[in-house]
Amino acid sequence: MLALCPLGYPFEMTNFRVTALAQSLPSTVPFVGPETQERAQGRSFQARLGANENVFGPSPKAIQAMSETPQWMYGDPESHDLRQALAKHHGCTPDHIMVGEGIDGILGYLVRLFVSKGDAVVTSDGAYPTFNYHVAGFGGTLHKIAYVDDHEDPTSLVKKAAETDAKLVYLANPDNPMGTWHKGTAILKALDALPKGCVMVLDEAYVETAPAGTEAKVDPDDPRVIRMRTFSKAYGMAGARVGYAIGNPVLIAAFNKVRNHFGMNRAAQAGALAALHDQGYLENTLAKVEISRNRIAQIAKDNGLTPITSATNFVSIDCGQDGAFAQRVLAALIEQGLFVRMPFVAPQNRCIRISCGTDENLELFNTALPKALKIAAE
Amino acid sequence: MLALCPLGYPFEMTNFRVTALAQSLPSTVPFVGPETQERAQGRSFQARLGANENVFGPSPKAIQAMSETPQWMYGDPESHDLRQALAKHHGCTPDHIMVGEGIDGILGYLVRLFVSKGDAVVTSDGAYPTFNYHVAGFGGTLHKIAYVDDHEDPTSLVKKAAETDAKLVYLANPDNPMGTWHKGTAILKALDALPKGCVMVLDEAYVETAPAGTEAKVDPDDPRVIRMRTFSKAYGMAGARVGYAIGNPVLIAAFNKVRNHFGMNRAAQAGALAALHDQGYLENTLAKVEISRNRIAQIAKDNGLTPITSATNFVSIDCGQDGAFAQRVLAALIEQGLFVRMPFVAPQNRCIRISCGTDENLELFNTALPKALKIAAE
Repeated sequence: MLALCPLGYPFEMTNFRVTALAQSLPSTVPFVGPETQERAQGRSFQARLGANENVFGPSPKAIQAMSETPQWMYGDPESHDLRQALAKHHGCTPDHIMVGEGIDGILGYLVRLFVSKGDAVVTSDGAYPTFNYHVAGFGGTLHKIAYVDDHEDPTSLVKKAAETDAKLVYLANPDNPMGTWHKGTAILKALDALPKGCVMVLDEAYVETAPAGTEAKVDPDDPRVIRMRTFSKAYGMAGARVGYAIGNPVLIAAFNKVRNHFGMNRAAQAGALAALHDQGYLENTLAKVEISRNRIAQIAKDNGLTPITSATNFVSIDCGQDGAFAQRVLAALIEQGLFVRMPFVAPQNRCIRISCGTDENLELFNTALPKALKIAAE
Repeated sequence: MLALCPLGYPFEMTNFRVTALAQSLPSTVPFVGPETQERAQGRSFQARLGANENVFGPSPKAIQAMSETPQWMYGDPESHDLRQALAKHHGCTPDHIMVGEGIDGILGYLVRLFVSKGDAVVTSDGAYPTFNYHVAGFGGTLHKIAYVDDHEDPTSLVKKAAETDAKLVYLANPDNPMGTWHKGTAILKALDALPKGCVMVLDEAYVETAPAGTEAKVDPDDPRVIRMRTFSKAYGMAGARVGYAIGNPVLIAAFNKVRNHFGMNRAAQAGALAALHDQGYLENTLAKVEISRNRIAQIAKDNGLTPITSATNFVSIDCGQDGAFAQRVLAALIEQGLFVRMPFVAPQNRCIRISCGTDENLELFNTALPKALKIAAE
């Protein structure tokens, strides 16, 4: 029981009767936003290359749709039109699709459905922190598998899932933060080895920017896997918060038990629909992303560093030394006005991660990197 | 354990190892969206008067801000600028403010922080279903207090909270769906009777449209209460999904344990900020709401019905008979192309609820109501 002083604080969290689980959780944020850093520094970044946002932005048709959508009305809680269009796009039915507040939001609902205290979940060591945040947030126990040659290791992930009787195993393809990938056939093979009672969470946030053959050709009815997609990356709408899951209709329907039914921004729903219908613009973006990736890789090589070949809209650059060195490089880039991150664990923390940018953005990087390397070496 | 057939479905939910709690929850939606009804009917509604949306819409400055905000960037996870402005507006600090994906989203986080299986929560019988949805969703046990003279009953709510050792007690002021209200001083009095260990969730979604003196003058540091506010109602931005909570900083910080940090739509953040800064437009809206409320009340009286005096942007109309009769009135209004709802339990279910609308909207209602009453009486 808490002792409530009528007034006259300060209070501690222990004064509130939150659940034991909530009490045990840290107040945290999976990622510090660039705006927070800008406020701390007292100046704006000159280039925003740290969150794998897509600086090329959404289709003009999406922008127009968002502008024209009256925001006095709640969004359609079924996201009906968007789900219809996505179903057609993916060759499934709308019942195979759940639209939500970004992949982050959908991952939260999924973990809530499956995970309670002590339930085992498997992921890669260094993979998406927000997934881990959700697992911890519902009391799950995370088991982590090391990267192998800078790639997630589907075989070991699935094996660990069997060992730990995991309810969920998370696998991103392509991977963030390394940018590496597996062929879709390798994912299907891992799926065939998945233990009973485990669902694979296949995060395909970056699949549009990946080479042909990366997308796993999953039967939409397959109950062993749920795929995560987003309008935040290739479609350039991170601020709009539109993600979706593709999965067995029974699993998809289960989201209706826990989701925030009226959580979708109405303009974002319309924008995503328009973006999906503008595949020509997407193709254009993908070409820009490839040029940008190549430019980042070239800048890395010009400075004696090793770019990791990427299937995403970012490139991880091996700085050739330890994590402390990479951290110094990163700090020196930030000091020069570039928002960049290194969300890695050892030994991947020898890398820094650079999101694709405009020519101007990358020229700033080209100028800043040699200086940063010099500072880091001092 | 589940028996996973490799392929060849259909699957049942029991094949997925969701939590026992998730297994027990229905796939549901607190409210059916008007779009769902439109699709079922094969035609659009002529007036949207069922969800207490604000047809007068957001400030033009908010619309402009939303249009001009680049959506390729994630929103600021701290909603810093908006929290700063809200703090100034409410005479508190940004640490007293949590911005979230509408009040619905914030209520979900709050319930998650406090409620686990069997925890007692108190609300009014017939009050906000989405709050109840969240409580059920986290395994809480709801205790409900009847309305008294169509008003929520703060004294009995607080008494029931003591009896049941409730962790949360929900009280909306003004109330939805009745539109009635208490003076702020009555809320403060209830707060003083609140049992130790219980937090009052004071939902003030409609407080801007209420008479002076309705807002409870709560010390922002007061740990006994958390207040919920929104840009969905008076500010006319329901589609944008921006709500906020005002409370003790320790409690506010706890949201960082569970919230979707990057869940806010970037344009919506900017739109809310612009809307807040355009208090002149808000005043204008409030005048329109009052005219509209009066018009709805007059139409009710003209048809021999009794409007419930309202402090909100809707009017509940006592149809003078039982719930079955009101249901028939509602159905006949819907049949005539008006989106309306009656989210009531007995004996409030003798009412239908009409949101404020344009003159044109209400003219449609004026025409449709006598026909509906005739049909209902047959």
